[in-house]
Parts: sequence; C-alpha cells; structure tokens
Amino acid sequence: MKLASLKHRRDGKLILVSRDLSQAVDASDIAFTLQDALDEWATLSPLLQARYDALNANTVSGRFVFDPNQCASPLPRAYQWADGSAYVNHVELVRKARGADMPESFWTDPLMYQGMSDKFIGPCENIELCDESWGCDFEAEVAVITDDTPMAASVSDASTHIKLLMLVNDVSLRNLIPGELAKGFGFFQSKPASSFSPVAVTPDELGDSWQSSKVHLPLHVQLNGDTFGAPNAGVDMTFDFSELIAHAAKSRPLSAGTIIGSGTVSNLDRSKGSCCIAERRMLEILDLGAPKTPFLLYGDKVSIEMHDKEGRSIFGRIEQTVVPYQIAEQGK
Amino acid sequence: MKLASLKHRRDGKLILVSRDLSQAVDASDIAFTLQDALDEWATLSPLLQARYDALNANTVSGRFVFDPNQCASPLPRAYQWADGSAYVNHVELVRKARGADMPESFWTDPLMYQGMSDKFIGPCENIELCDESWGCDFEAEVAVITDDTPMAASVSDASTHIKLLMLVNDVSLRNLIPGELAKGFGFFQSKPASSFSPVAVTPDELGDSWQSSKVHLPLHVQLNGDTFGAPNAGVDMTFDFSELIAHAAKSRPLSAGTIIGSGTVSNLDRSKGSCCIAERRMLEILDLGAPKTPFLLYGDKVSIEMHDKEGRSIFGRIEQTVVPYQIAEQGK
Repeated sequence: MKLASLKHRRDGKLILVSRDLSQAVDASDIAFTLQDALDEWATLSPLLQARYDALNANTVSGRFVFDPNQCASPLPRAYQWADGSAYVNHVELVRKARGADMPESFWTDPLMYQGMSDKFIGPCENIELCDESWGCDFEAEVAVITDDTPMAASVSDASTHIKLLMLVNDVSLRNLIPGELAKGFGFFQSKPASSFSPVAVTPDELGDSWQSSKVHLPLHVQLNGDTFGAPNAGVDMTFDFSELIAHAAKSRPLSAGTIIGSGTVSNLDRSKGSCCIAERRMLEILDLGAPKTPFLLYGDKVSIEMHDKEGRSIFGRIEQTVVPYQIAEQGK
Repeated sequence: MKLASLKHRRDGKLILVSRDLSQAVDASDIAFTLQDALDEWATLSPLLQARYDALNANTVSGRFVFDPNQCASPLPRAYQWADGSAYVNHVELVRKARGADMPESFWTDPLMYQGMSDKFIGPCENIELCDESWGCDFEAEVAVITDDTPMAASVSDASTHIKLLMLVNDVSLRNLIPGELAKGFGFFQSKPASSFSPVAVTPDELGDSWQSSKVHLPLHVQLNGDTFGAPNAGVDMTFDFSELIAHAAKSRPLSAGTIIGSGTVSNLDRSKGSCCIAERRMLEILDLGAPKTPFLLYGDKVSIEMHDKEGRSIFGRIEQTVVPYQIAEQGK
C-alpha cells in the first residue's frame, strides 16, 4: 500500500497512491489524516488496502493524477521523530577525519537522537535557511513508522510494529553541530526541520528487498542534477530497524506514528558515493588533507529517490532547493 | 483562563476549570482538544474566555466537580517538547560535584534538549519503571506552551507567543545519563515520559507573579509527604522563557502547541531545598563526600504544586507514585 498526504491545513488529507505513482484516490473518508489511520491501524488498514487494490486495478472512481508537488510529508507533523545512526562505518569515518577514536560500544549500542517533529518540510518544498555560513547539509536516510509499541519490546516484537517506510532528508547545520555537541545535550539548533518522501509505503511493497528489517536497495542522491551517491541501504547497516525500535523503546512505550530513522546511509565501498556532504568532505580530508566540496549554498538543489529492481520509483522523489529565509515582519 | 483535558482517547477532551479549581465545564464544542484550541488560538481563545468567565460567575450550565484524577496532561501528546536548563546555578552545581568546570558560555547560551512528546504521563498517574537501578528522579519545572512562532523570532517577539503555562515533572533516569551523554547525541533512553500539571493557565492568571517572562512564585516539591524543596521559580533563572523560545526558534519555526520547559528550578539559597534528587545528592557530595539520598524506589510518591500569594493552588497538583512496569505479554 502507498499513502500520501495532500497539503491541507496542518495535518494534510489522506490519499492512496497507485503502485506506479501515477494515480491517486481520496482516502479521507476512511481516515482523514495519516495519523488518524495509524492511531487505528489494525481496524483501518484493511479498508485502505481494499481501496488501494481497486486503485491499482483501475476499478475505483474518483481517481486523479498524482502530483508530489501537492503533497506534504506523509506525516506533516508527528508526535515523535527519533533518528538513529545505524551505518556505524559513517560514524567511524566522521570521527577519524577529526582525529577521534570511536568507542567499541558504538558497534553494539545504537546512537539515536530525538529530532523535532512539529512541522516537516514538504517533499518538494524549499529548505529555508537563515544563514549560509551555518553549513547546511542533507542526510539521505530510510525511516519507518511504527504503531503502538510497548515499553521494553524485544527486537523480534519490534519488527511487528513496522507499518510504513519513507525516505528522509535529515537537514543538518554542520557548523552549528560542534558547539552544540560540546554542550553535552545533543542536537537542537543544528537539526532543523527534516523532509520525507512524497509517499509512505507498507513493507510488502518492497517485496524481497525488505529483509531482516532492512531495505536492500540503493538510495540515489543527486546534487544539482549530478549523482552524489547511491549506497545500498541494506549493506553495512549495523543496526536494523527492529533493533533501532527496541533501543528507542527500552525505557518507554512508542506511540503510533513514531518515526524511526536509519541515519545517513553509507557503504564501506567508496565507489558508491555518499548520502551527505559531510561524509564526502571527510573522505577529502583523509585523501587530500582538506575538504573541497562546500556545504549547500542558496540555489542548490538536492534530490533523494529509491528505485525497485525494475527501476521504478518506490517512494517518489524528495526534491528541494535551498533558499534564503525571509524574516517575517513581526508585529512587535 | 484555566484549561484541562479529560482522559478521552489519545488527545483528551477539552474542559475549562474554574479559577479555584473546584468546578469545570465542557469546552469540546469550541475546540475538541487543547491542541485544536492552540492551532486556532486567536479565533478560539475569546470563545473559551467567555465561557471561563461564565464558569467563574456561576452562570454557565453543565458545571461539574473538577477531578484531577480524570485528567490527562493538558496536552496528552504534543508535537514538540523542548526542555531548557535555565537555572544555571543548578548546572554548575551538578558539574562541580563531579569535578568538572562549567564553560563560561553556559551563562549566555542556553542548554536545551528535544524531549519525547508522543505520550505524556497523566498528572495523577503512576510512573512505570522497568528497573529501579536506572536511578529514577523527578525534576520539578515550569513550562510554557507557544502558538506559531516564526523562525528567528526576537526575544521580545517570543514573549508574545507564550499562551499557556504548566508545571512539569521531567522524569529522568540518572544512571542512564552518563552513558548516553558520553555518546555525544544527548538524552534519549534517560528521559522517558514527563508529566504535566492537571491544569494549564494563561499568563494573566498569575497576576503580577508573571513578570519578565518568569513566574515569581515558589515551586513546592514533596517526596513521600515531606517537603523536598520550594525554590522560587523567578529567582536565579538565568534565561527567561522568551529567551528560551528565541533560542529554540533560531533555525526553525515553532508550531502551535510547542512546550518549552525551564529545566529544574533551583535557587542559590540552599535553605529553599531542591527540585530533584540529583541536586540534593550533589550537595551531599560537596558537604559529606558522598550522596545519601537514594533515587526513587518503587512506592515512592512525588508531588509538585505551586500556590498563589494567597496560598491557592494555581495548576493543581502533580502526584505520582513509582511502580514496577509489568512487561506486557506480547504476541510474538
């Protein structure tokens, strides 16, 4: 099943999207929003599935052409967005470039931070940035959405709570990170709003590319139309999504609609390229002694997409341009 | 105006509570939930205010006795909970006890972390804990709720976005904190669900105790019926709420319903006691060489309340008991 949210007030309006992403049909009579659907997933997903099947069979009325530009993020705002860092190779590389060893425990205990979720950027909306010198970067990732997951869920139980998958651009302000991390409380200003793919899909849409709670397909990233990287999301992923969920649920339940991210996808095989500028800069530091790829500048365009084995887009394309933020006239 | 949420599905059902907390009246016809009210605050708050005035004048029908036990947190789940650490005295003390200096910048650049907000504990509900050895602690705080706040809002603009205030118990798992902070990504497992006072109030309810974006009243904390501390929330607060909001909004807008916390209230005057066990333990370490007050054990009861100058409870009382979590039977 493929779902999306048309832009509509704060929480969007739920639609179903055909497997080939060409057509859509309203689903707001079943659940007005995707959050509503997730809140009652066991009851509502069979109704959504029936309409989705009819959409793909061309037997449903009210079809319309699917346009990602009309979409908000599948969850335009969410109650929880927790981002892991499951490609430990990437973490090790980042640390190596700044001369820091990585603790052995990083191979067994996942990194995860609580991200902001009160308003995500739409998949085709601009990234508004106050200051180019903050070092804006993309991070291409995969994410899952869970239903209600009990505290202390085991890894195998966690796997049953994965209901949907999306792609993510976890926008990061690299030059604000060192100062924030030095304070010891983690990211805040350095992690502004993320964006998600136009479409969220159920795991069955991935066929045998969804195995062991990992997506075994390349994640394609372009910067200004040039390939920046296409590492395989199923390779070198130290912690799978079930392990990330169990980590998040250790001391608390996770509510329906919780989004768990993989962290920047990264392969040891350097020929696959990178899913963020920071990683490429680290490789440049290691190879050349200094970074040469700049962080994002106003006008730069990023796109993130994943194709199935037949080359068809699964989630639609995240496509965003960095623009200067116009500070609003404020009343006082 | 005083507002609360009766327990009802995931987001509660909005009620208005009389100034003396004795009576309540349904407000769900104006806005079904508090989040709904905040999403359209400019339009809906005058309607709520009119009914609140009628409630206090005993001229509204359908009044019923207010019972905090029937309440969820005012926002049972929220899209953003960002907790500051504005009582820098407290931060310095914590660091001193472990022999660490505090950077000078902590006096000018607020600490803030992104907390989980997908499900808060009700004000009179138990704190369910998997493991006593995790070192469960309370942190008594004040928090504000904002409406939509633009990115890069100035401190003076930020002050206009404070719509409601609450008390908080920011539950913390002290023995999980050092390991998490050492990983560099901030708190996650060590900060499980928080709880909030039964009632959220508009700033005007505080009269002249609300000045310069601070609440100038003692915050009363009891542990098992004994006073644990009553520091004044308006004293030694290095960053006021407008400064905390502006800090949070530096690189992103804040959506309506964003909760911003003060961090553990703490006064330099030690005779005022403490708002968390960790601070008392730090003082014990400094005075006696070792801590003697244990963290919370199963059966321990915490209460947090604030009174106006006439001794009347403003927000109602947070009152919680720590209990062992019963791991649910899981299907697989």
